[in-house]
Amino acid sequence: MSKTKIYKIKVEWGDCDPAGIVFYPNFYRWMDAAQWNYFEKLKYPIKTLQKKYKIIGLPLVYTDAKYLIPCYRDDILTIKTNLVKISNSTIKLQHLIINNNKIACIGSETRIWAKNSSGKITSAPIPNEVIKIFQLNLSKEIIN
Amino acid sequence: MSKTKIYKIKVEWGDCDPAGIVFYPNFYRWMDAAQWNYFEKLKYPIKTLQKKYKIIGLPLVYTDAKYLIPCYRDDILTIKTNLVKISNSTIKLQHLIINNNKIACIGSETRIWAKNSSGKITSAPIPNEVIKIFQLNLSKEIIN
Amino acid sequence: MSKTKIYKIKVEWGDCDPAGIVFYPNFYRWMDAAQWNYFEKLKYPIKTLQKKYKIIGLPLVYTDAKYLIPCYRDDILTIKTNLVKISNSTIKLQHLIINNNKIACIGSETRIWAKNSSGKITSAPIPNEVIKIFQLNLSKEIIN
Amino acid sequence: MSKTKIYKIKVEWGDCDPAGIVFYPNFYRWMDAAQWNYFEKLKYPIKTLQKKYKIIGLPLVYTDAKYLIPCYRDDILTIKTNLVKISNSTIKLQHLIINNNKIACIGSETRIWAKNSSGKITSAPIPNEVIKIFQLNLSKEIIN
Repeated sequence: MSKTKIYKIKVEWGDCDPAGIVFYPNFYRWMDAAQWNYFEKLKYPIKTLQKKYKIIGLPLVYTDAKYLIPCYRDDILTIKTNLVKISNSTIKLQHLIINNNKIACIGSETRIWAKNSSGKITSAPIPNEVIKIFQLNLSKEIIN
Repeated sequence: MSKTKIYKIKVEWGDCDPAGIVFYPNFYRWMDAAQWNYFEKLKYPIKTLQKKYKIIGLPLVYTDAKYLIPCYRDDILTIKTNLVKISNSTIKLQHLIINNNKIACIGSETRIWAKNSSGKITSAPIPNEVIKIFQLNLSKEIIN
Repeated sequence: MSKTKIYKIKVEWGDCDPAGIVFYPNFYRWMDAAQWNYFEKLKYPIKTLQKKYKIIGLPLVYTDAKYLIPCYRDDILTIKTNLVKISNSTIKLQHLIINNNKIACIGSETRIWAKNSSGKITSAPIPNEVIKIFQLNLSKEIIN
Repeated sequence: MSKTKIYKIKVEWGDCDPAGIVFYPNFYRWMDAAQWNYFEKLKYPIKTLQKKYKIIGLPLVYTDAKYLIPCYRDDILTIKTNLVKISNSTIKLQHLIINNNKIACIGSETRIWAKNSSGKITSAPIPNEVIKIFQLNLSKEIIN
């Protein structure tokens, strides 16, 4: 099975701004959806991770995006998501948003393995068995 | 104190569609915000109602909106919210969205007094003391 | 070909509110997308109507929605769109939003055939040939 | 006049996700609004720049954001925007999103001075007189 997980969306009228192109926060909305999709396709949905490891989820610490070509209404976007970095308590996902065979946007999300420690969100070490699965799926980050 | 509660917003670039006018679901987003504002200004924030009466909130059963004039980026909108109908277990709020002294949009939200009955949301009769407060604030619905 | 046109969406994390259910303006966002889909599936995309008849599109005059059951993250929604009313210069679309074989939401959009008359948007009579196509696709409105 | 321009927003129910905290693409939506506000407060609204210099605006090439503390419904956020970098054809804005005197989020937007060259968006050198105004407003980037 490919390490890259795929999520597709169609750009709708309401996703675009008065310049007729995608209003950029929507790219992050789609990256977030692609992230949920990533863990489902990996067969480790975040819901399962929450139950099994008592984490509160994978809150974000950092995101970024580089915009290469504009996207328009009716464009079909393919988001290719890869796990590109693993540390003691964080992971980094990279999302390539492809429009008509060209990279329209390259984004990333850095997320922490987080627990609720008496009302406060704190990072926790990712368990070894999870690290192993993540490492099997580690891909090279694309630099553009 | 006026029965009408006021909520103001500025139309931003990202609220508008490729035609340059407000993408209509945003009017509902602002009506929802105006609804929270309504109960706060009434000195009965929904959070308080939840605690005091063990309701799960005021879920929606119906919304509508009539669009009279388009709204553009940078427009300052004044939303005037009134309670216009009270029944045994529902209330109706009317929102007038005013743009430059003209009504741009007239919307409404019908919401139920709802409890959680073993995992299911069910309507419940609004307590008498709440009915009384609502009745003191009842206004005439504007028909356009 | 069925008169009913189908549009599908998956409810994402970011579509839901702190109560864990779909934030209701998103239903309107999806109805708007279903509307563009309706005219494409009818083989009369709005872009074509704009070019051929010099209309500025089909601006909204009225929308409404009745909410029957809540929708949650990961739900797959099927939106069934029908043309249910035609007048001299307006049409009404009805959208049934189906979740797991039950109607979750019934909404409608009333839109006008609009022209730009020296900077002002004004309604115009729908041409006879278009009326004919619309009439062939007219369905009965579902009352719930 | 301060080099820092201020934009305020209130976090609404609909801005939050099922975890009860701001759904992160909204931070970018507010940064975009803060950017329009920045140029207005600078007395060089983008509309004016468009007319005077025939640019198509300031399209984005890169954005990022670091998330430090979560934001909740009813929080009042103060966005402090500064111009922190100027190059031949790009500028970088930094946005500090302050919640209750703490930095909740630090974001940036890198934008290009762009012209329409026969249907294609291309970067163009920022005119000297504009560079001068930008330089007068240049602030130090905050590294966190």
